[in-house]
Amino acid sequence: MSEASVDPDKRMSSLYYVGLQPDQSNIEAAIDSDGVLSAVTDGYDVLSVPITNAHFRSGISRISQPVSDPAIVPPVAPPIYSDVNFAPNTTYAQHIFGMAAQWIELDSPDPRIAAVSAQVLKHELSFAYFCGLSYVIVPGPTRRNNVALYAESLNAALAAVPHINVIVHLAMAETGIEEPSGSDVQAPVDAMSIWDIWNSIRTICDYSSRLSVGLQVPAKLPPQTVVSRWFAEPITVLFISAKIFLSNPKGYPVLSKAHQYLLFKYMKMKPYTILQDVREATQIRTSSKLPSKQDEKAYLIYIRHLHTILPAPTAVEKFGRGYQDYLQNPLQPLADNLESGTYEVFEKDPVKYAQYEKALFQALSDRGTSPNDQPLVVAVVGAGRGPLVGCALRASDKAKVPIFVYAVEKNPNAYTYLLQRKELEWQNNVEVVFADMRNWNPVRKIDVMVSELLGSFGDNELSPECLDGAQRVLKSTGIMIPQSYTSHFIPAMSPKIFSTIKSQNREDIVNTPYVVMLQAVDLLAMEIKQAWEFRHPSPYLGANSKSSAVTHERRYDGLRMDDSVSNDHNNRHVKARFSVENRGIMHGFVGYFESVLYGDVELSTRPDTINKKSKDLVSWFPIWFPISSPLYVPDDSEIEISIWRKTDNRKVWYEWSIETFVLVPGPRLGSNDGDPMPPESSARSNGSSTKRVRLGCSKLHNPGGKYSSMSL
Amino acid sequence: MSEASVDPDKRMSSLYYVGLQPDQSNIEAAIDSDGVLSAVTDGYDVLSVPITNAHFRSGISRISQPVSDPAIVPPVAPPIYSDVNFAPNTTYAQHIFGMAAQWIELDSPDPRIAAVSAQVLKHELSFAYFCGLSYVIVPGPTRRNNVALYAESLNAALAAVPHINVIVHLAMAETGIEEPSGSDVQAPVDAMSIWDIWNSIRTICDYSSRLSVGLQVPAKLPPQTVVSRWFAEPITVLFISAKIFLSNPKGYPVLSKAHQYLLFKYMKMKPYTILQDVREATQIRTSSKLPSKQDEKAYLIYIRHLHTILPAPTAVEKFGRGYQDYLQNPLQPLADNLESGTYEVFEKDPVKYAQYEKALFQALSDRGTSPNDQPLVVAVVGAGRGPLVGCALRASDKAKVPIFVYAVEKNPNAYTYLLQRKELEWQNNVEVVFADMRNWNPVRKIDVMVSELLGSFGDNELSPECLDGAQRVLKSTGIMIPQSYTSHFIPAMSPKIFSTIKSQNREDIVNTPYVVMLQAVDLLAMEIKQAWEFRHPSPYLGANSKSSAVTHERRYDGLRMDDSVSNDHNNRHVKARFSVENRGIMHGFVGYFESVLYGDVELSTRPDTINKKSKDLVSWFPIWFPISSPLYVPDDSEIEISIWRKTDNRKVWYEWSIETFVLVPGPRLGSNDGDPMPPESSARSNGSSTKRVRLGCSKLHNPGGKYSSMSL
Repeated sequence: MSEASVDPDKRMSSLYYVGLQPDQSNIEAAIDSDGVLSAVTDGYDVLSVPITNAHFRSGISRISQPVSDPAIVPPVAPPIYSDVNFAPNTTYAQHIFGMAAQWIELDSPDPRIAAVSAQVLKHELSFAYFCGLSYVIVPGPTRRNNVALYAESLNAALAAVPHINVIVHLAMAETGIEEPSGSDVQAPVDAMSIWDIWNSIRTICDYSSRLSVGLQVPAKLPPQTVVSRWFAEPITVLFISAKIFLSNPKGYPVLSKAHQYLLFKYMKMKPYTILQDVREATQIRTSSKLPSKQDEKAYLIYIRHLHTILPAPTAVEKFGRGYQDYLQNPLQPLADNLESGTYEVFEKDPVKYAQYEKALFQALSDRGTSPNDQPLVVAVVGAGRGPLVGCALRASDKAKVPIFVYAVEKNPNAYTYLLQRKELEWQNNVEVVFADMRNWNPVRKIDVMVSELLGSFGDNELSPECLDGAQRVLKSTGIMIPQSYTSHFIPAMSPKIFSTIKSQNREDIVNTPYVVMLQAVDLLAMEIKQAWEFRHPSPYLGANSKSSAVTHERRYDGLRMDDSVSNDHNNRHVKARFSVENRGIMHGFVGYFESVLYGDVELSTRPDTINKKSKDLVSWFPIWFPISSPLYVPDDSEIEISIWRKTDNRKVWYEWSIETFVLVPGPRLGSNDGDPMPPESSARSNGSSTKRVRLGCSKLHNPGGKYSSMSL
Repeated sequence: MSEASVDPDKRMSSLYYVGLQPDQSNIEAAIDSDGVLSAVTDGYDVLSVPITNAHFRSGISRISQPVSDPAIVPPVAPPIYSDVNFAPNTTYAQHIFGMAAQWIELDSPDPRIAAVSAQVLKHELSFAYFCGLSYVIVPGPTRRNNVALYAESLNAALAAVPHINVIVHLAMAETGIEEPSGSDVQAPVDAMSIWDIWNSIRTICDYSSRLSVGLQVPAKLPPQTVVSRWFAEPITVLFISAKIFLSNPKGYPVLSKAHQYLLFKYMKMKPYTILQDVREATQIRTSSKLPSKQDEKAYLIYIRHLHTILPAPTAVEKFGRGYQDYLQNPLQPLADNLESGTYEVFEKDPVKYAQYEKALFQALSDRGTSPNDQPLVVAVVGAGRGPLVGCALRASDKAKVPIFVYAVEKNPNAYTYLLQRKELEWQNNVEVVFADMRNWNPVRKIDVMVSELLGSFGDNELSPECLDGAQRVLKSTGIMIPQSYTSHFIPAMSPKIFSTIKSQNREDIVNTPYVVMLQAVDLLAMEIKQAWEFRHPSPYLGANSKSSAVTHERRYDGLRMDDSVSNDHNNRHVKARFSVENRGIMHGFVGYFESVLYGDVELSTRPDTINKKSKDLVSWFPIWFPISSPLYVPDDSEIEISIWRKTDNRKVWYEWSIETFVLVPGPRLGSNDGDPMPPESSARSNGSSTKRVRLGCSKLHNPGGKYSSMSL
């Protein structure tokens, strides 16, 4: 492996990094520069090496004997040459992950032990930094009730030593490594407790970007909820003991199916995998005191093999590669004119236009040829570069229903492109119109109006307002495609997105919904809920649908300027209650949409319905609504999200606020929920004696559209 | 009452503002400008008047009839001349508190009613603003489970109309106004539920400075915890119905003792008191359909009378007047040289120097005259302008124990002043020394060393470090006054302090402890706990106390520069667990100190021990440790505060972090507290089946002293 290949930029490539943690017995042999070299030539990318040795420890033990007064903390001197396992060596530094002493107890209730441990950690980090190392692995806390002390020491060490990254070595859950391997007894433990400790540590350390997790993969895997939870955390290292491998019929070490799936999932995050107990496991496997290097290498080879047989990425994963957890401002196609490349990206969707074509086919078929044999009038409003014009023409051919197509576009550059396509491809069946659909006055009324104005949250690119503006030119019996769309949402945890937003420290960013290809996210609630719906043609303009076009025009032509025309019917408000089974920390909520294009032809970005309704749809990433301060929720709690879609005659915006509750045993009498009005939908209204206790609420985000809005 | 007297600046004076809310029946008569005038000449300062009238309401009722589709919201036109109760009039605007329509329901589950109500409120605020009013009273929410909707509408109205202040009219607690007056039945209601609703409203409205509370004083008062809770909130108006007055033997209306105490307490905040139901109550009291103006005025006269018989302020209240809830940076007398005025303020304390003199008297008496008849050597270290020199000389006279006093001072200006006093007052009994006590080398060793270096949190002005530095010149049998001091703390709620800090929006401010004369504060926990102790002479230097002065000097002379000399023995760490009975929101914690000057002579700023140990001590306000985000805690919860006093050889600083838990019925199994190490002090360890559920934790504040520290 060449020097260049450990360039951090290369981690975006398909390379996968595997390391070795030498057995306790042969550390000293493994850590001179030849040892590093041999491990690297053996195929490992990194070696995890204890920074200090037994000599250092014995020196510490001597000074930290209890004395009469426990408040006197002996000063710990930095390690000297004979105390450390490696020397500064720029050639190998990048191949070494330092390991802090396993015997330190930052969270010891004995103040002497805690203070000595804190000094040892600082010295070790400092030496690792001096040697040019990037990562030091620190043992996790040893008890639950002293996490603040542990985190404070970690934070002080991070502050004292620049640049170095600290990896906190943690079990996935309380069970697992404690259980004797092969045991079937699953003790009634708290599966989220280790995550909980980690969450406290990183909260106390204020989401330091230099703090991440090294996760020990246990022999017995925890429930799926725990696996998903950790997937949302910054995992730098997966530790895997060679002892948890099974032997296949040929005697080679392999992982169980469950472990394979775990690795397939976690490998997406490109952590380092560090193998432990390799010599010991090889000795057992080969029944040999001195197994060959080749026998020891079998574990490494297997991990590399697993990486080569990773399941192919889904269409969405392929499409979103490089955009994972990256915050994008939603498009404003109404206010801004898109560039050709943006259109081109959207046109690549393998599913979206197939669905549109199917919807158009069904609509044209249902409609049939008109009595006077005139072609049906189809309007593509917001035609862009014309993909829906193509869909309409193909659907017309297939349905044997002749059509005439208006392609209406307000972007002058796209308009020019459409004119060119008309000349080259479409000719007389298509008329290209340069107009804002809200002001367009065609000579003929429209039978089928088709648009692709949906955003990640459905209505967030102003589809309702645009189509309301165009509705006056639709025949009273006309069809609009899409016929309706609904917005959906669910509370979620994403330390990664939160720390990105936090690091900007700008009020506008925590008040803006972003489009994100979500990866390091854990959905906190048991189900996604619908927020609201829009239907087209709009029923709120329906009272006038039989009156003359003049009425419509008088009402809508001046939409943008005349304050007497209200857009209030496109306001929405909903408060939804989400049940949370396992505790977690809410950093925001995720928005999706579903749309009925026509009849049974639908689009969906909801992860639980996308495969049924529009598998492999890739055009939309979810939308992320951030909150300004994370809200912690315990087991068996409820999150209520209130969200508003608000409009004036110049802009549209969202506001949102969150309330949290915990459900505890107890009578409802005198509870926070003793409302004269019963709640509309009680998530667990089984009549049992459950009290709902308020835990917190957020401020109202983006009041008045102060920080983010879509211009009409 | 003259125009000038409603100048807001004058509210700091002893004037007390009383208003009248005219009875529903005679509003129309009361609200023309003559009506305002007559109320003002009748002795009221303000009149609370509904902004719109029945005519406006009937217009709204007409348009808000339910129609087929509830999503269609009728636009509400602003009120016209015949819809309002008063006209713009700059002369009287300042005497009018507008009242929003009592029939609006911002939190209605019917979206039409909610939306119409929101429009009505905006129109009313807008008209009130146009008329020059400063305050509008808005009815509180009508249900508990739609508070987010209520708050959003309020927030939108505040954003739409500039400057105007909104007063949310609320009951103190669920019981009270609902109960028939005189009833003894106390329904098992939730005493904090109304406060809880208010807390949600102002949290959602992001602690708007234009939002405050108008509190309805009920006939039956709620528990003291509720009274204290509201005292910490921004109460602009106290509403008192004349119907809750009793008649005294002469037939005059008076309030019960309990109500008097309530008013005495709340009058400190100088709210407006607005009397309601005056005509009706007068009719009943006088059994007259047409009572005289004088009879109606009896309630006003009584309130004004109450204000004149307010209990005298305590010494601390008198001393702190004008400083209530005002954040001051703690003094740094070591790093900065104080000005004479600052010394002068401290010297005014009636109690502090009496206690010092008593302590010196006892110490000198215990010590007695030395065998060789030499006077005892007393050192006043940090003598300032010399008050302790006076104490020592007086104590010496009284104890008949001759002394020689060193007055050691590092502030050159105070030194000059001391020289003058020596010449004029003290002469040969006193030697004035210009030195930092940490470097001072007197020819004689000290018998009694006395200092006044304590800060609001005890050690926060570096008393431990200064006295450690001076200890080397103390005889091995010498006495130090104070002998010891302890720091104490308790979690607290203060929306006022939080919003002051929040409005600065500076990271350093939420990471800095402030000295504050606390007023609008509610202590959340059941008891104040001790953090840590310092003792003098320091036992950690004690091992060397019998060795030569040279050893001491080698160890301490270079304290500031020589990194090999450690101040680690003055580091402290404690985690304390506080039980919280009634829910609340934590904005920070309050720190106090106690000190043993000598023997049984003590100083205390703890509110629960100050009267016993040092009544009327005024020199120290408490210290306030802020937290960056408020933490909500439900009933029966626990707050754990971890606090560190940390030092390096250049500075001393505090770090702090908070964790919160709720206690719920249930087995401990699988709880967040199933630690192998049992917690050191379980607040409710009665062995019953109580589960401790983690609710949240704060970040670590001021890590590494990054934002605030005391320089050595």
